[in-house]
Amino acid sequence: MEPALAELKQRLAEITDLARVGSLLAWDLEVYMPPTGADARGTQLSTLTSLIHRQATDDRVGELLDELEPYAASLPYDADDACLVRVARRRFEKLRRIPTELAAEFTKAQADGYTAWVPAREENDFAAFRPALERLVDVKLRMVECFAPYDDAYDVLMDDFEEGLRSEDVTRIFETLQPELTALVDEYAGELDEVLRGPFPVDRQDALSREVATAFGVDWGSFRLDLAVHPFATSPSLTDIRLTTRYDEGDLNSLFTAMHETGHGLYEFGSSPSLDRTPLCGCSSSILHESQSRLWENVVGRSLPFWRWFYPRVQEAFPERLGAVPLERFHRAINQPMRSFIRVDADETSYGLHVILRYELERRLVAGTLAVADLPEAWNARFEELLGLEVPEDRLGVLQDSHWSTGYFGYFPTYLLGTVLSVQIWQCAVEAVPDVEEKMERGDLADLHAWLRESLYALGNKFPPEETIARVVGGPLEPGPYLAYLRDKLGALSAA
Amino acid sequence: MEPALAELKQRLAEITDLARVGSLLAWDLEVYMPPTGADARGTQLSTLTSLIHRQATDDRVGELLDELEPYAASLPYDADDACLVRVARRRFEKLRRIPTELAAEFTKAQADGYTAWVPAREENDFAAFRPALERLVDVKLRMVECFAPYDDAYDVLMDDFEEGLRSEDVTRIFETLQPELTALVDEYAGELDEVLRGPFPVDRQDALSREVATAFGVDWGSFRLDLAVHPFATSPSLTDIRLTTRYDEGDLNSLFTAMHETGHGLYEFGSSPSLDRTPLCGCSSSILHESQSRLWENVVGRSLPFWRWFYPRVQEAFPERLGAVPLERFHRAINQPMRSFIRVDADETSYGLHVILRYELERRLVAGTLAVADLPEAWNARFEELLGLEVPEDRLGVLQDSHWSTGYFGYFPTYLLGTVLSVQIWQCAVEAVPDVEEKMERGDLADLHAWLRESLYALGNKFPPEETIARVVGGPLEPGPYLAYLRDKLGALSAA
Repeated sequence: MEPALAELKQRLAEITDLARVGSLLAWDLEVYMPPTGADARGTQLSTLTSLIHRQATDDRVGELLDELEPYAASLPYDADDACLVRVARRRFEKLRRIPTELAAEFTKAQADGYTAWVPAREENDFAAFRPALERLVDVKLRMVECFAPYDDAYDVLMDDFEEGLRSEDVTRIFETLQPELTALVDEYAGELDEVLRGPFPVDRQDALSREVATAFGVDWGSFRLDLAVHPFATSPSLTDIRLTTRYDEGDLNSLFTAMHETGHGLYEFGSSPSLDRTPLCGCSSSILHESQSRLWENVVGRSLPFWRWFYPRVQEAFPERLGAVPLERFHRAINQPMRSFIRVDADETSYGLHVILRYELERRLVAGTLAVADLPEAWNARFEELLGLEVPEDRLGVLQDSHWSTGYFGYFPTYLLGTVLSVQIWQCAVEAVPDVEEKMERGDLADLHAWLRESLYALGNKFPPEETIARVVGGPLEPGPYLAYLRDKLGALSAA
Repeated sequence: MEPALAELKQRLAEITDLARVGSLLAWDLEVYMPPTGADARGTQLSTLTSLIHRQATDDRVGELLDELEPYAASLPYDADDACLVRVARRRFEKLRRIPTELAAEFTKAQADGYTAWVPAREENDFAAFRPALERLVDVKLRMVECFAPYDDAYDVLMDDFEEGLRSEDVTRIFETLQPELTALVDEYAGELDEVLRGPFPVDRQDALSREVATAFGVDWGSFRLDLAVHPFATSPSLTDIRLTTRYDEGDLNSLFTAMHETGHGLYEFGSSPSLDRTPLCGCSSSILHESQSRLWENVVGRSLPFWRWFYPRVQEAFPERLGAVPLERFHRAINQPMRSFIRVDADETSYGLHVILRYELERRLVAGTLAVADLPEAWNARFEELLGLEVPEDRLGVLQDSHWSTGYFGYFPTYLLGTVLSVQIWQCAVEAVPDVEEKMERGDLADLHAWLRESLYALGNKFPPEETIARVVGGPLEPGPYLAYLRDKLGALSAA
């Protein structure tokens, strides 16, 4: 068995290397690449994708997997090698469905889409973005057809981000959440507290972003933080983690962006080193990934205990604006539900409604009941129903997110589901680390990070996400704890 | 013929893409990668190298080339497709000589060599570097054997950097240069003028570096300038050029580094777009490449006409240090021959002696008449003969350059030959653009850049370098013009 296993591992290691290389290319594209590099970069990414696709779908991989099935079956279920064969089998079968040319076509369409979206958003010009978006929808739907027969085309799209997620489950959870979130927004929505309006000099925001990332567990020998139009985190290797953010002198959103991307980064950094250079390394479940960005950003990063430690530091950085503002007011301000346009800047309560809007629109796009050309109008109409605001321009509406520009259809629901899960995971963390809030008040998050790393991050992709979730929280994803958490928090803030 | 040509081009385009991807990885490694990313990056580069090697030596490439020979022979000699088949044939034959395992062994030895060299240099400890260097010499000599029979092992090494360069020609040219350079250093050597000693604030050096690069023709929509420990230029694509530099508050060397790397960058940027994604794109002749870095850095960048335009700007940036220093003194200072230890900081006149030293030592290493263990002693002895200084420690001597640590034997001579060629090219430029110096005095280098681009850069790798040189300067590389240029310049400076 050994030679077959060694050969499979060698092949998977090379494929993993090339995928990591692709992540660096994509990072550079958004962070440092000169503008005229875009076309060639799209082509290079496309070449790399074809190559990965050819290697990953090589007949020999199938032969090796066949040969290794009895060996894998003889191992304990959670042995690394058993998981490796399972995960490699799933990926192989999925990739074999998609012709290499179509995979390459998609990669090129992604690069072109992003390149069209950036100026279109700046110039508020949906029409300029529309052809690229139409092409992306078209290519994606052709990719979906490779998986026929299927129950629901949208499930096929989601499966790339969340193995096994079914839209009937998503719809059921969202149908529970939406009226409750709407009720909470109706009850508690208010205006932005002026204490959150700048000027907050950008260099101090940057220093604070780095300080909070460090407190959460970032080691700058292995991490970077750079600027990007649309913040993201990526990992060119297990020990090379790139966070990105953006600063606006007019607000303090960057602090929460830093926490959010740090959550993603810590997850990627936390895989067991034994999984390195295999498809088990990192986390390919978007729900689990978002559970960590949202746990660090919201459950920790908007909590009173955390701000007992961090607020004096922020006051010191911005004495003119915050020196005389009490902690309680600041804490209420960063948790204030609001009706606003931009998802990534939304408060914790209304956030879900932004996601539900996108989910509904994507479902209609994929079902063919909504044309790309009609997307802005549909967005604006449903946005007004859900959030009670009239969208004045597309850059505050349909053009705000980069996801569609890179063909990420089926991703958005995982943001809200991850947010829901983050509260379930937090409750388990509190059981495991009973003095976690007390330590947070001293800026000591080491035990929390250690528990998350051991219980979750270290597992990487060994198990299907549903199973990983069950291992961590003891059962399936449930909206109840999240809603209770929001109700308790908003009630307490309102009573204070 | 068309399908074979299309298939060959597609294969070469993919190989070119992967090589460009490798250049971005290498750039990031030296510019932005967090320290703990090093191991994985080495592995990724090695995976990429093997992949390129496998693709480039695929039997099918040979079949396609065979099939295309009659077609190529039917074309005009300088047709792009004819050149493509010639260049692809040469690369294929060269790569096929080297077994993949030996190529992989070399890649590993390079990574180990560099890893050993960095601390050894810092700690001034040649003994710690020696085993890695011995291994590199051994692997390189085994690679040379793949090309037996050959006239001279050193020619095989140089051929990787300069197609067809023969050591008997190098030796002849260096034997002409060395006594003349020694005589010039003897006659004119002096001390560093204190006007070149800082403090020169780094942010102003950076602004000036960008200003001079812009004046030379850099378009920041396609170029970047970043910091690196060892400055270099690289091109992740034809329209994405990365320059790197370093700043030291204590001197103004960064201005010349910016000019030097700009020269490399302009060359890479200047290939005809019709050559993109083929091995004809860019310039793989080190002599030609160095001719451009040295032309912009020295022939332009240390000339009086150029400084008539640029000096007031530099004075304005550093009024305390240079406000009262006349142009003539500054110009003399940046051209002052000196006896010094570090090649990259050497003046234009003594530079050649530093290169000749390395060439002589490499020749003896390769011939087996000098053991790695005896290298420091041999370095120091010959350095004293050539430059009249006793080397006090190896980091100022044999450990200063990174080249040997990555197995770059046979590269050094191209630095001096490129410098020699730069003057021949300059003389042709002056004929083509008679008012070039007058324009330079106004900071207008557009005509010079346009002529270089059209006459040289656009050609890319279409022809063997010897032939490209002949096309540009009308004959072979000759040391005469360079020596006359130095004599005239130093004489004029001394008389002024």
